[in-house]
Amino acid sequence: MDKSLNVGFIGLGAMGYPMASNLVTKLPQGSKLYVFDVSKLATETFTKSHPTSSESCDSPRTVAEHANIIFTMVPEGSHVRSVYLDQPNGLLSHHLQSRLLIDCSTIDCETSSSVHDEVKRHSPSASFYDAPVSGGTLGAEKATLTFMLGCSETDETFPTLHGLLSLMGKTIVACGGPGFGLTAKLCNNYCSALISLATAEAMNIGMRSGMDPRLLARVFASSTAQSTICDKWNPVPGVCPDAPSSHGYQGGFKIQLMKKDFGLAVEAGKKAGAKMLLADAGLKGYTEASEDPRCRDLDSRVMFRYLGGDEQWQELARQS
Amino acid sequence: MDKSLNVGFIGLGAMGYPMASNLVTKLPQGSKLYVFDVSKLATETFTKSHPTSSESCDSPRTVAEHANIIFTMVPEGSHVRSVYLDQPNGLLSHHLQSRLLIDCSTIDCETSSSVHDEVKRHSPSASFYDAPVSGGTLGAEKATLTFMLGCSETDETFPTLHGLLSLMGKTIVACGGPGFGLTAKLCNNYCSALISLATAEAMNIGMRSGMDPRLLARVFASSTAQSTICDKWNPVPGVCPDAPSSHGYQGGFKIQLMKKDFGLAVEAGKKAGAKMLLADAGLKGYTEASEDPRCRDLDSRVMFRYLGGDEQWQELARQS
Repeated sequence: MDKSLNVGFIGLGAMGYPMASNLVTKLPQGSKLYVFDVSKLATETFTKSHPTSSESCDSPRTVAEHANIIFTMVPEGSHVRSVYLDQPNGLLSHHLQSRLLIDCSTIDCETSSSVHDEVKRHSPSASFYDAPVSGGTLGAEKATLTFMLGCSETDETFPTLHGLLSLMGKTIVACGGPGFGLTAKLCNNYCSALISLATAEAMNIGMRSGMDPRLLARVFASSTAQSTICDKWNPVPGVCPDAPSSHGYQGGFKIQLMKKDFGLAVEAGKKAGAKMLLADAGLKGYTEASEDPRCRDLDSRVMFRYLGGDEQWQELARQS
Repeated sequence: MDKSLNVGFIGLGAMGYPMASNLVTKLPQGSKLYVFDVSKLATETFTKSHPTSSESCDSPRTVAEHANIIFTMVPEGSHVRSVYLDQPNGLLSHHLQSRLLIDCSTIDCETSSSVHDEVKRHSPSASFYDAPVSGGTLGAEKATLTFMLGCSETDETFPTLHGLLSLMGKTIVACGGPGFGLTAKLCNNYCSALISLATAEAMNIGMRSGMDPRLLARVFASSTAQSTICDKWNPVPGVCPDAPSSHGYQGGFKIQLMKKDFGLAVEAGKKAGAKMLLADAGLKGYTEASEDPRCRDLDSRVMFRYLGGDEQWQELARQS
């Protein structure tokens, strides 16, 4: 990428804002980022921070008028539909000829697939890709996100997509074809949510039996319970100094979002006819914890608190 | 360790036999290993393989007459009780003065604790340690086991224990005190069993949605669903060429043993008052799969088969 580009970014929320910030500072010289968000404050703050390289738009349509490459990063499937279809000034109210459209939102596969089809019917020369991320707001800020991209490595657009996404992330996995980025993301979060809960439960059993959680985490790390969750995001406060659990479960990945993704994965699993033994218990736990005022709005590893885990063990260890 | 030692080993099963084999070949010159097993064939085979450095015993008592250090590696708590207490020629029918007693079996914490107390009452100068292992029969053969040792790193016997266990394993974790080796092992296997099942379910959702399991495993590896189970013991055949799943689920860790450990962990959790959201669903799954003739006696990652996962995807991928 050395030629200047006209790029659009729709959705300047907790994830979208830092992603767009990385994009605007790393695009080739002379490029422009056209931004839109339902919050005027967000677009104004953004364009004030990047006065020469960004421009505020008053609708998705205006973004489409200027940009050849358009990213979307919004919370739910209904928002993706709204940005594309369900409003008079949606993206599809303008022609999208040869546009490269990349949706980074984590939504259900059906909505993504129907938007993909609508785009193709409306502008056959346009391309629509699902490219959800993992890595949280910290990954978005540090440009260390993992992108799960709904295309094949042999897709002729893949090098371009890889170049663009590398400005915002570290790992780009081509998941094989349209929709498979979302499939991979939902499967990953289904698995990750259960690993988090299993690790919280296992740590809690050990601690209530009298074990030091740091020793228990060391056993897990060298044995078959090893996981990134245990090593870097341990649900027990004080085991990983940098993890959200060690900072009042602030930051990280909100439990309501985990519950949302888990629910989407269970829906996808049911539609695909997959037997899931842990789905009901997992969904019940995340749903209840999401509604619990002690857990709501905190990192999803707060499941340890929901289980009644001892968060004061360090105090007691210091006193004894 | 340079002086010759008289060591005992009780239990020459699938794990004990290769562990004792490593021990007998690595002990200081002039040492002798006194072996006992309920199967005479096992002790005879062993002593024939090591004629000068091992000796067959006809009861645990005979082992105690000769050895100062005695390992036990038997399947269940009832066997540990039998070896120590519940037979006329058990270990405690002889004095155990200054003996170092190391039980490597994975059993419930209560039985271990009661044997520990009986030993102390009977011979106050003897020491009894729980030291269960992880790593399976392959780890036992290659001496790469992880030992979870029920003692503190500051325990004066720890250097001796570390030296002895290093002859049979690679990682020795001092878990803090008596019984905590078992606690750590059970918590590890509780967590590992759930990670295996969660990974099998998540891979199955993705595959039934049309995704290539190798791409899905690559996403997990670079994201929050990463685990040793996913990376090295993936439940889907063909993802990890060396994993049991890629060899008809032969080898590895038998599903009945995983079910046994999971059940022991759930019991320990209940006794400790730990809330476990996934315990019932997990135990039900492992129990049913253990009784399923398609899964019984195979590596516990056979849960993928139990879920109805597609084991033929490689054939289909080759054909298309």
